[in-house]
Amino acid sequence: MRRLSLPRTFIMTASILAFVLVLQSLIAPFHFSSQAQTQNWEEKFRALPRADLLREYMRVLSAEPHHLGSAQDKKNAEWMRDKLNSWGLQATIEEYQVLFPTPKERVLELLAPTKFTATLKEPPVAEDPDSTDQNQLPTYNAYAADGDVTAPLVYVNYGIPADYEQLERMGVSVKGKIVIARYGASWRGIKPKVAYEHGAIGCLIYSDPKEDGYYQGDVYPQGPYRNETGVQRGSVMDMPIHPGDPLTPGIGATKDAKRLAREDAKTILKIPVLPISYGDALPLLRQLRGAVVPDAWRGALPLTYHVGGNDDVKVHLKLSFNWTQATTYNVIARIAGSTYPDEWIIRGNHHDAWVNGADDPVSGMCSVLEEARAFGELLKQGWRPKRTMIFCAWDGEEQGLLGSTEWVEHHAEELKQKAVAYINTDSTGKGMLGMSGSHTLERFINDVARAVPDPKGKGSAWEIVKAARERGATTDEAKRELRERADLRIGALGSGSDYTAFIDHLGIASLNLGFGGESGGGIYHSIYDSFHWYTKFSDGDFTHTRALAQVAGTAMMRLADADILPFEFTNFVETVDRYAEDVTRLAAVSKPTIPVDLKPLRDAIEKLRRSADSYDRGLRTSALSNRKEADLKALNRLLYQSERKLLSDAGLPRRDWFKHQIYAPGFYTGYGVKTLPGVREALEQKYWEEASTQARIIGKTLDAMSEQIQAAASKLLNR
Amino acid sequence: MRRLSLPRTFIMTASILAFVLVLQSLIAPFHFSSQAQTQNWEEKFRALPRADLLREYMRVLSAEPHHLGSAQDKKNAEWMRDKLNSWGLQATIEEYQVLFPTPKERVLELLAPTKFTATLKEPPVAEDPDSTDQNQLPTYNAYAADGDVTAPLVYVNYGIPADYEQLERMGVSVKGKIVIARYGASWRGIKPKVAYEHGAIGCLIYSDPKEDGYYQGDVYPQGPYRNETGVQRGSVMDMPIHPGDPLTPGIGATKDAKRLAREDAKTILKIPVLPISYGDALPLLRQLRGAVVPDAWRGALPLTYHVGGNDDVKVHLKLSFNWTQATTYNVIARIAGSTYPDEWIIRGNHHDAWVNGADDPVSGMCSVLEEARAFGELLKQGWRPKRTMIFCAWDGEEQGLLGSTEWVEHHAEELKQKAVAYINTDSTGKGMLGMSGSHTLERFINDVARAVPDPKGKGSAWEIVKAARERGATTDEAKRELRERADLRIGALGSGSDYTAFIDHLGIASLNLGFGGESGGGIYHSIYDSFHWYTKFSDGDFTHTRALAQVAGTAMMRLADADILPFEFTNFVETVDRYAEDVTRLAAVSKPTIPVDLKPLRDAIEKLRRSADSYDRGLRTSALSNRKEADLKALNRLLYQSERKLLSDAGLPRRDWFKHQIYAPGFYTGYGVKTLPGVREALEQKYWEEASTQARIIGKTLDAMSEQIQAAASKLLNR
Repeated sequence: MRRLSLPRTFIMTASILAFVLVLQSLIAPFHFSSQAQTQNWEEKFRALPRADLLREYMRVLSAEPHHLGSAQDKKNAEWMRDKLNSWGLQATIEEYQVLFPTPKERVLELLAPTKFTATLKEPPVAEDPDSTDQNQLPTYNAYAADGDVTAPLVYVNYGIPADYEQLERMGVSVKGKIVIARYGASWRGIKPKVAYEHGAIGCLIYSDPKEDGYYQGDVYPQGPYRNETGVQRGSVMDMPIHPGDPLTPGIGATKDAKRLAREDAKTILKIPVLPISYGDALPLLRQLRGAVVPDAWRGALPLTYHVGGNDDVKVHLKLSFNWTQATTYNVIARIAGSTYPDEWIIRGNHHDAWVNGADDPVSGMCSVLEEARAFGELLKQGWRPKRTMIFCAWDGEEQGLLGSTEWVEHHAEELKQKAVAYINTDSTGKGMLGMSGSHTLERFINDVARAVPDPKGKGSAWEIVKAARERGATTDEAKRELRERADLRIGALGSGSDYTAFIDHLGIASLNLGFGGESGGGIYHSIYDSFHWYTKFSDGDFTHTRALAQVAGTAMMRLADADILPFEFTNFVETVDRYAEDVTRLAAVSKPTIPVDLKPLRDAIEKLRRSADSYDRGLRTSALSNRKEADLKALNRLLYQSERKLLSDAGLPRRDWFKHQIYAPGFYTGYGVKTLPGVREALEQKYWEEASTQARIIGKTLDAMSEQIQAAASKLLNR
Repeated sequence: MRRLSLPRTFIMTASILAFVLVLQSLIAPFHFSSQAQTQNWEEKFRALPRADLLREYMRVLSAEPHHLGSAQDKKNAEWMRDKLNSWGLQATIEEYQVLFPTPKERVLELLAPTKFTATLKEPPVAEDPDSTDQNQLPTYNAYAADGDVTAPLVYVNYGIPADYEQLERMGVSVKGKIVIARYGASWRGIKPKVAYEHGAIGCLIYSDPKEDGYYQGDVYPQGPYRNETGVQRGSVMDMPIHPGDPLTPGIGATKDAKRLAREDAKTILKIPVLPISYGDALPLLRQLRGAVVPDAWRGALPLTYHVGGNDDVKVHLKLSFNWTQATTYNVIARIAGSTYPDEWIIRGNHHDAWVNGADDPVSGMCSVLEEARAFGELLKQGWRPKRTMIFCAWDGEEQGLLGSTEWVEHHAEELKQKAVAYINTDSTGKGMLGMSGSHTLERFINDVARAVPDPKGKGSAWEIVKAARERGATTDEAKRELRERADLRIGALGSGSDYTAFIDHLGIASLNLGFGGESGGGIYHSIYDSFHWYTKFSDGDFTHTRALAQVAGTAMMRLADADILPFEFTNFVETVDRYAEDVTRLAAVSKPTIPVDLKPLRDAIEKLRRSADSYDRGLRTSALSNRKEADLKALNRLLYQSERKLLSDAGLPRRDWFKHQIYAPGFYTGYGVKTLPGVREALEQKYWEEASTQARIIGKTLDAMSEQIQAAASKLLNR
């Protein structure tokens, strides 16, 4: 663009843009997008995000408790809608009606051998004005069952399946007992689910100071870590079955949607569950007798940890909930695309919090807002994206990704056609850039990270991550890879945030971005997640939040403006091949009693590799010079639809809502990703026949993707 | 003996014994001792120790606090003397006058930022009647300096030199500050010594629950571990310089011995030092700010550990002591040898405790008493040892090995001539046999352990140790050695008990024996080391204590009756060679700035190997048939004097009392042994020239031993 000396404020219409594109392609080798022109706008874009505005958004949005169903939640949505409209985007609020239980009664008592009544309260902290706010949601786990139980208590460590194997070796049963598990090692919802499967009649989950308290560092307000009264609220809905409204699986929870009866909902738990602070847990754990726990089960409370189960300990847990409907207010803002208005680049973060939620979710929400404002500025300067950009502020995420899931289910048909990619954030902090997502976008997001300066001013965001990984690499193999591989590996997506419905249910390539690692955290889902905490201990000067806006905005812009969408498949194949090696090893060590046939998977990967290579060759040798708009459109459709090919309509065994065959949250880990989940979980559960069946299914989905990529390659090569 | 059908009660005089010996040698190949005869008496001996009597000794001896200088200490000595005499031994009490400070004033306060006064008290425990005893010695560290200091506090982890290197890297100085160190990783006396060397003006030592409290297991009285009020008393005398009375180094502290002025004593500390419970430490540690400590420095108290040093924390420590003389009452009991009355086999355990001391030292003392009673029984049955047996109950061990050291120094000339070996115990418990000592006795003590059934009834004591080591072996090398090496390795002796003067000062081959490993301990040097604790949590049925009496008594008997003393040198050479490899590696990694010459050490080892082999050959091929009593006596003298050759008159650098060149307690580790200490510690301190000098000195001592062994071999081979 600079070579053409177009004035900066030149108003480009779609046709002029096409003209520039052609010119550009005549004088430069192939690029994903019209680079020089995009770079110019990109640089303008990256100069726009402002720390002072980010801070102001946070101040406003975290000023009061604003959980789903609260007055402030709706106010925040309206404030954002109005802001977005004022910046020149088209913003509306879309509503769904979801089941949202709130506590009616919460009692936790030790009845014997001594008496103790749990406080179940987070007291105010003098220096934090928000800690005295009205309308704080009490400490509880949403979608736990009503219940009134009295029983002995058993300490089950993290409460994951391996812990019950250990208990069995120790001869301890939880049948008819209440279990107490510490947070960590799995998503919280797994703990009561597994406890219930083993016969427990109640479940307490507490934050042990080993993982989440003074063992990690100074506690709030002296330091950022969880103090003895801090409680981690959270949903325990059985999300590995499906997220979203428990009463409307697979469909949008519109007012008149057909709903399940509550007793038929699969994702509501069967036993009462309550999260407590370590201050409340200590008097209970002190009473436990029985065997001393294995070393790895020890927390950092000042006592000798025992498994308990002794009959002289009587714990009374009584919970009841208001099982009412609430309205989710999703704010949806658009910038219509100039050339491909029906290709959507979607960006989102949730806006609802458990309490004030300055960190979770407001920090990430601020970035999305500031990206939107910056694009509004560019619009005023004459820029317009080729594709449609959609900015989303989701509601009801904390309860089970309600807002995003219902929206995705409601708009499923349109999204299947139009969604190019979804970029999520859910909180951001101090530290360095974290990147995870679809590996078809791995190279793309690496390139984006190379283009954005790290907020610490010592190189690009990418260079900082690379340097940190080099410092952390312990094996020769890891060091070699960091030296030789062009791109940094990105993590696979499990669950735990709003990308879930996009990628797992609809096969929309997704990314999750955020800065972090240096904040030190211990206020997660407590009243202490406040503006005071965030500005004192996390990204207080908002430089990292600004950098996130620059990274995510750059990604949005490149996706929106690319001539050929920046999907790439060689990294994807290489990654899937590693997953296949993993499950092959797992099959070997699991000692199946009948042969497990993973050959269809292996064969499909080889085929996929050939397709990926041929698309890669096409990209490197082809030029845009004589390409027509229609050809590009067809090519791009093949590219962004490729992730759809990774779905199987039937879904995963025992949870058909999850259709993606490469990534899924673990059935027994929750947030934690399971790659090639069909095969991997079959092996873990020793369903040998199912493992072979699932290998065939994954093979088929990979074959379908191969064909799609081959078709794209042909379009590139045989013009 | 059975073959000769001698009646069991046959009274053997020395001459008859000699006759039997000759007969025996005519019909059997060579043995260390007249085996069949000894075995018969050995079996009789091993049948004698009784659990009920062991329990009764403990009840009596631990009934009241009986520290050095207390009325009960003297009463216990007299009770033992009378018992020993009643059993047919000749027992007397030998007295020394030693400097023994006791607390006059102890104050520990936090003055700012909040006020707290340390309790410095161990409250009674309802179920333990002894915990209410009168005359308990207060909690303190003996030989700390008087002092009255107020300063900020610095947490120094274990307070060993490496911790100060870490503090320096963190930019933290202890100059003018009070340090607080946790017990562990070194002998306690090292902590204030190193603190003083770094400029600290006071030192607190506390028992962190990580090493010594609820992190290890249930605390007293629920379990055996240290509770929040338990304090570890103990001496902080600078024992790596020399043990024993600080005012009479090198000579017996008889009434009229020439004494140093107190200010000239080298082993009294220069700063006040106080041990405290974790209950008292918690309010202090809570106030510390500054950097959060490295992971390895974290204890198990419910707080975030900081290094501190912040000026707003003011700790006041005030200590003053009664610097008075006390009398040690050593009980010394003899059974005169029939053939070689001037060859002494010595057995000992201390009898003084910090408070009631059921475990430390009474448990071990009970074993020694019961051994003595059993030998008294054998005497009545007609047995008599060829060599003189001496049974010792030492006093003042806790303050700095006072009783044993003064006795050894006082009788040094006679001991140099007559002492064959010293066998020590200092407490015993549940678990398996622990063996350490001079490697010239390694094979011998292995053979003894093979002969005694383990109290758990699943093989010999030796087999149980071997099986445990096999289970614990993690490297292929360790597993191979356990398979292939005939003998189990025994540990080298550092310090911390009454063998020190015997082996380190006089070169008397020594062993240290005791059962342990399963008791779980947390009452060490506290008022809770009581009969109640011991019988509830340690060897409550006294089966292990009885087994110890069987092991140690068998060893005593074999040493006393052996025709040729069971010293053996091939294991010794192999072990010293390993030590030499160690220091060679250490020299390589220490990167000396001038060449360090270890060749004299290597050469001496090769020479020693040849002598050891030739003595071994001699043993295997020679017969006793035509040997005269005088020849045997000369041979045995060469053997038991061989350990003397390992001394250097000049002693170790900067601590000439320690004369042994192979074993010494570490100058900066305390109890922990340093092998080849002259070279090893020179390398550690980077005294490169000294390392070479010391290698020459060790070489010379090994050469002297080679000659001695060669002379013994010649006696065997050239009859």
